[in-house]
Amino acid sequence: MHNQALKRKLYVIIFEADTPAGKLFDVTLIWCILLSVGLVILESLQGLPVWLKTPFIVMEYLLTAFFTFEYITRLYCSPKPSKYAFSAFGIIDLLATLPLYLAFLFPGARYLLIIRAFRLIRIFRVFKLFHFWIEGQMLLTALRDSSKKIAVFFMFVVILVISIGTLMYMIEGGKPNTQFSNIPNSIYWACVTLTTVGYGDITPVTALGKFLSGCVMLIGYTIIAVPTGIVSVSLMKRHEKNVARECPNCHRRGHDEGAQYCKYCGSSLNEMKNEK
Amino acid sequence: MHNQALKRKLYVIIFEADTPAGKLFDVTLIWCILLSVGLVILESLQGLPVWLKTPFIVMEYLLTAFFTFEYITRLYCSPKPSKYAFSAFGIIDLLATLPLYLAFLFPGARYLLIIRAFRLIRIFRVFKLFHFWIEGQMLLTALRDSSKKIAVFFMFVVILVISIGTLMYMIEGGKPNTQFSNIPNSIYWACVTLTTVGYGDITPVTALGKFLSGCVMLIGYTIIAVPTGIVSVSLMKRHEKNVARECPNCHRRGHDEGAQYCKYCGSSLNEMKNEK
Amino acid sequence: MHNQALKRKLYVIIFEADTPAGKLFDVTLIWCILLSVGLVILESLQGLPVWLKTPFIVMEYLLTAFFTFEYITRLYCSPKPSKYAFSAFGIIDLLATLPLYLAFLFPGARYLLIIRAFRLIRIFRVFKLFHFWIEGQMLLTALRDSSKKIAVFFMFVVILVISIGTLMYMIEGGKPNTQFSNIPNSIYWACVTLTTVGYGDITPVTALGKFLSGCVMLIGYTIIAVPTGIVSVSLMKRHEKNVARECPNCHRRGHDEGAQYCKYCGSSLNEMKNEK
Amino acid sequence: MHNQALKRKLYVIIFEADTPAGKLFDVTLIWCILLSVGLVILESLQGLPVWLKTPFIVMEYLLTAFFTFEYITRLYCSPKPSKYAFSAFGIIDLLATLPLYLAFLFPGARYLLIIRAFRLIRIFRVFKLFHFWIEGQMLLTALRDSSKKIAVFFMFVVILVISIGTLMYMIEGGKPNTQFSNIPNSIYWACVTLTTVGYGDITPVTALGKFLSGCVMLIGYTIIAVPTGIVSVSLMKRHEKNVARECPNCHRRGHDEGAQYCKYCGSSLNEMKNEK
Repeated sequence: MHNQALKRKLYVIIFEADTPAGKLFDVTLIWCILLSVGLVILESLQGLPVWLKTPFIVMEYLLTAFFTFEYITRLYCSPKPSKYAFSAFGIIDLLATLPLYLAFLFPGARYLLIIRAFRLIRIFRVFKLFHFWIEGQMLLTALRDSSKKIAVFFMFVVILVISIGTLMYMIEGGKPNTQFSNIPNSIYWACVTLTTVGYGDITPVTALGKFLSGCVMLIGYTIIAVPTGIVSVSLMKRHEKNVARECPNCHRRGHDEGAQYCKYCGSSLNEMKNEK
Repeated sequence: MHNQALKRKLYVIIFEADTPAGKLFDVTLIWCILLSVGLVILESLQGLPVWLKTPFIVMEYLLTAFFTFEYITRLYCSPKPSKYAFSAFGIIDLLATLPLYLAFLFPGARYLLIIRAFRLIRIFRVFKLFHFWIEGQMLLTALRDSSKKIAVFFMFVVILVISIGTLMYMIEGGKPNTQFSNIPNSIYWACVTLTTVGYGDITPVTALGKFLSGCVMLIGYTIIAVPTGIVSVSLMKRHEKNVARECPNCHRRGHDEGAQYCKYCGSSLNEMKNEK
Repeated sequence: MHNQALKRKLYVIIFEADTPAGKLFDVTLIWCILLSVGLVILESLQGLPVWLKTPFIVMEYLLTAFFTFEYITRLYCSPKPSKYAFSAFGIIDLLATLPLYLAFLFPGARYLLIIRAFRLIRIFRVFKLFHFWIEGQMLLTALRDSSKKIAVFFMFVVILVISIGTLMYMIEGGKPNTQFSNIPNSIYWACVTLTTVGYGDITPVTALGKFLSGCVMLIGYTIIAVPTGIVSVSLMKRHEKNVARECPNCHRRGHDEGAQYCKYCGSSLNEMKNEK
Repeated sequence: MHNQALKRKLYVIIFEADTPAGKLFDVTLIWCILLSVGLVILESLQGLPVWLKTPFIVMEYLLTAFFTFEYITRLYCSPKPSKYAFSAFGIIDLLATLPLYLAFLFPGARYLLIIRAFRLIRIFRVFKLFHFWIEGQMLLTALRDSSKKIAVFFMFVVILVISIGTLMYMIEGGKPNTQFSNIPNSIYWACVTLTTVGYGDITPVTALGKFLSGCVMLIGYTIIAVPTGIVSVSLMKRHEKNVARECPNCHRRGHDEGAQYCKYCGSSLNEMKNEK
């Protein structure tokens, strides 16, 4: 019983953010993550003084210890440890602890230590701390509604990019000193041009190539309207749906967007659940 | 009679994707297309070992044989072969078989073999296999609704680009070592700038030229709103129309977007037809 | 009286596009404009053979003669010649005839002949020939509705660009060999970056400069949403207004967008007028 | 009493723009600001003749005197001077007067004089002079409505950019002569690419790096739809709310967007207040 109470208490602190202790924990976690990422970024700079190396290693040891302790506690206090361990966040939490241990096993593996930077993704875990947690959820729901349309658009763009790249290779590929020396390079160029990025590391030199480039640019400039339109409409529909939400208790409608409780009877409107 | 049954059976396998055999055929086709395009891309790389050449040629022979066989079967089992042969997909299917045969007739024609990459367009044929086939159709319908407005915008942009290009040629054309050496080049620059691609292979050097560039950029940055707005509104209208669809049988409304059958009486809401 | 009839007949041919003669005239005009612009573009190319020069000059003489004749006829048959002469289109029509005459007066004035390319703008005059004339009008009306909001956004962007340019000059201006050598150049850079054009002819080299660049890019990437949103909403409102249009005769509503005649009683819904 | 009347009179002239004197003051202020900014920009040019230096200094003295006088008057005639002094505009007004005084105290401080360019921000103060003052307010309100969603998107983009930058450092960082020499540089590159700016000062050279670049571009090209959608919907909602506004006097609805007075009873619909 006492065990259960401890588990429950820890759960509230670690997984939730409604209590002062829970908030403090989440804020500590954010700072640890940011510090950890900051260390990786600083380490990559060449001109750092040598004496900084030792404090950097010490801090990395401390951070790994903290993340390991946190991971074990999460496993311990989770109602269903196996479910947590295999959830998306569980795997990310585990990965955040591993780099240093792996670096012991495989010394010299430079990449393992850079991987620590991806601890940044854990920031999303403590997102619920912020006031705009619900806004993020609404955005995600709207994007999920339109994901199929966006996927169709994405496939269309990929096929377009490969076709244009091949066409450009036929036009410019035979010129001496061309940078369209093979189809993958040409596809890379098509991607750079269609998305209006335009590095300029590969540019057409023939008149026909420049004309085709112009067409590709205009196409890219125009079809960007498609995903934008899709997302706009999706957000609009979601907004309409939100306004038309029915309170499960008193069955009245017209609640504000983002409202979580019925403004007439106070019962919860929101049936979203977090993983436990 | 037996002939008709075979034709019908083949038709279901090749043209439709609702049966297991039809799905298997479509998946096979996708892999053949991707393999064929992959071969063309790999062949364009310079550093490939010589011994790879023979398997590449053999595979190309096999793929061409498969596409030829498929084209003939499609012609055979189609209810109206001539209609199929002259439909957009029919012509694309034919073109997919030709490159190797033409390469026999005109040896050394490098381009003919690269053309094989455009077999990729055939992917659209098997698009109906995917769950988001209807989404694609809805996107297309919405774009068709707004095609006239987009065409007006496109013509406006083309006239703008030519005018700006000419203006820039007047400003920068007389400078020594300028890259605005003729009007087509200047138009190409205007296109690169207005569409916010910005390669940087041609850039203004005079103060007036830079000022004009800045204006062109700001114009390009602002008018991209026009196609986006057009498509958003078009998708919105299509959504409203979908919600307001009337079941042809029971005349009730309020069906979900993408629904194909009336949720009250079960009769088909969808009158789209594929080419046969 | 006979004079009036001739005037009226000419007016229908030249200013309108509903009769076969009017259509023929407009199509001829489009081809003359395109030919004229094509000539200017071709002349700007350096490698042209010398023998082409004479036919080019002859064609330019013929085109100028045609445009002059057209301008005089328009003046003649217009109900209010002075109103036409000072309208936007009247001035453009006049300018289209002038370059060659001016080139006689001021020989060697290279620019005067390039100005001929702006005859392209006259294409808009014969726009009404195309089916999407109404679409263009609707787009323009929607843009005019939102022109104030877009102007506010534009002014905001201009102030932002100048401020960022100045800030960047303070950061990077003191470095040796910098391209941020003065504030106008820095403003040009800010414009290139904020609009996501990104030529790369001027790029930051200091860490602080790169950080500021990153911020500017993210700002530019995000605020492009503002004009897009404005135009989307404006088009949406225009669409709603169109659907809610009331027939001036039978007072019924629900006409399709772009409809010009009431579908119930056939009277005109459209009160747009062209300049005469 | 007389003092109060003077204060009131000055207040109307300086803070409001409805009287001819108020308008004249605002227009003078705009010209002074533009002149001041123009001076800073001109001074930054290298090739200026020496004799221009004296008039530039004299004008700067005059402008500083004017801004100082204006600031003191504003303080004097404001009903609550301390509230004005600590408002955003009050601080900006103060900052506009300081650079020259500070330059006396710290001679040689080049930056202090460049800071004068930020007087440009004061332009926003006299924005209410223009007819589109209300439009700007509506835009701002709509943006404030969606600020949380945009903040979520912004944080997501920042995390994405850092992650992609780190990933690219792992891929390209080990190559000789690479420009991905440390993680901050790689993050800068990720920012340049994701926002579709594409300077081209840092570009990938390995095949894997180019592939990842292509993916980043396509992501950046697609997710730009999110802020656009957010702002579109926010403007749409604001428009709907405006149309549904209720007159506080006669309680009727259906007023035009931007209307400030009820069209039925003439009482004010607008409860916006300026800082005093």
